[in-house]
Amino acid sequence: MKKYKKTDLESYTLGTTLTLELLNKKIEYVKRIYISSKQDKNETYNKILEICQDNNIEVIYSDKIINSLSDKDNCYVIGVFQKFSLEIDNSKNHIVLVNPSNMGNLGTIIRSSVGFGINDLVIIKPAVDIFDPKVIRSSMGAIFNIRFMYFDSFDDYKNSLPKREFYPFMLKAKTNLKDITSIDNYSLIFGNEGSGLPDSFLDVGTPLIIRHTKNIDSLNLDNAVSIALFEFTKNNF
Amino acid sequence: MKKYKKTDLESYTLGTTLTLELLNKKIEYVKRIYISSKQDKNETYNKILEICQDNNIEVIYSDKIINSLSDKDNCYVIGVFQKFSLEIDNSKNHIVLVNPSNMGNLGTIIRSSVGFGINDLVIIKPAVDIFDPKVIRSSMGAIFNIRFMYFDSFDDYKNSLPKREFYPFMLKAKTNLKDITSIDNYSLIFGNEGSGLPDSFLDVGTPLIIRHTKNIDSLNLDNAVSIALFEFTKNNF
Repeated sequence: MKKYKKTDLESYTLGTTLTLELLNKKIEYVKRIYISSKQDKNETYNKILEICQDNNIEVIYSDKIINSLSDKDNCYVIGVFQKFSLEIDNSKNHIVLVNPSNMGNLGTIIRSSVGFGINDLVIIKPAVDIFDPKVIRSSMGAIFNIRFMYFDSFDDYKNSLPKREFYPFMLKAKTNLKDITSIDNYSLIFGNEGSGLPDSFLDVGTPLIIRHTKNIDSLNLDNAVSIALFEFTKNNF
Repeated sequence: MKKYKKTDLESYTLGTTLTLELLNKKIEYVKRIYISSKQDKNETYNKILEICQDNNIEVIYSDKIINSLSDKDNCYVIGVFQKFSLEIDNSKNHIVLVNPSNMGNLGTIIRSSVGFGINDLVIIKPAVDIFDPKVIRSSMGAIFNIRFMYFDSFDDYKNSLPKREFYPFMLKAKTNLKDITSIDNYSLIFGNEGSGLPDSFLDVGTPLIIRHTKNIDSLNLDNAVSIALFEFTKNNF
């Protein structure tokens, strides 16, 4: 078992709680579990063993493999799973990330998205690999709750859909996020961490801005997405 | 010049743009500037040299020092400054972080806070060091826009103040953030990334919850703070 590469057919969860989340949500894709000798024999550990036994999942005790896959000292359980693909649901609301490049941000965005009940994620390439163990860890397991699809371009995504409302978030937009009365069947669209969305998105749907002082250039991407999610979904909570 | 330690009297900015921000906002504390031979002779570089010349700030060309202070390959300018302390303004609104432990989060929270016009930050110990170069970098220079103070306990902070509105953010709170009509002179209070605020804060001011689905345990701290900032300040933007 070697360190994760994008071209691998398998990926893995780094950590005890994260691995339990994998087993609870996506057991059909789990291949095997590695456990370190340092793992406490606690409730989570017992639960993991029980699920593996009930489902004939191989459990391997190997400090060597744990150490070779994890950069952190406090990772004692690793769950290996086959990468999967789940078609997004076009009757639901979507988050669309155009060229996201930061793995930590992507994971945190997935966590917030699941938190606010949007479980369909579209990623426009080029983009970071959603199955990288760093993304999985930073999502705190929320990745196992979502459907997601990669598209080569925004037009490919747009052309695959029946009519819906597009809201690109841009610093050049004229409409303030707070003035939107949210409707259903929408896509909230965000650009790359460094460059944002290209100007061509000014002609897509209703571009929105989260206004802020001039003392910062922009909000951090995952913070902007979280604010948008809160504002669009707040009548549901 | 050695790698940063919490006990040092000086800290530094890692990066060209960040160093220019330091020079623009806190020049009175700048001690000297290091520049790598790899730095392009571009507009930002010229601006830095000009400011240093006008203000008699020493500029040292040293790849060795740059390499010893920075973990990243793409850092070509470092600005060394004396750590400073600026009393928070009790007539303004505050962000209060109780025991924050993650440097990246702290920096991002400062960025969002400045973005929404709250420039006074209170940190309750034990807590991460706001002058760590990682916090400074993650704030994208927003740290040079704020006043901040550390307190040994929340009571010490509370007792130092005239009357104001406290809003602790807690999963056990009953009042929904979206139902608050924001008033002025408030403190938004957030707990540690892992453990949140202790239950004792249920008796402090008006505890608030950002409601979300049961599919996540909690929002990432900087996302929760950003949502709260947006909601409390949105009538100003």
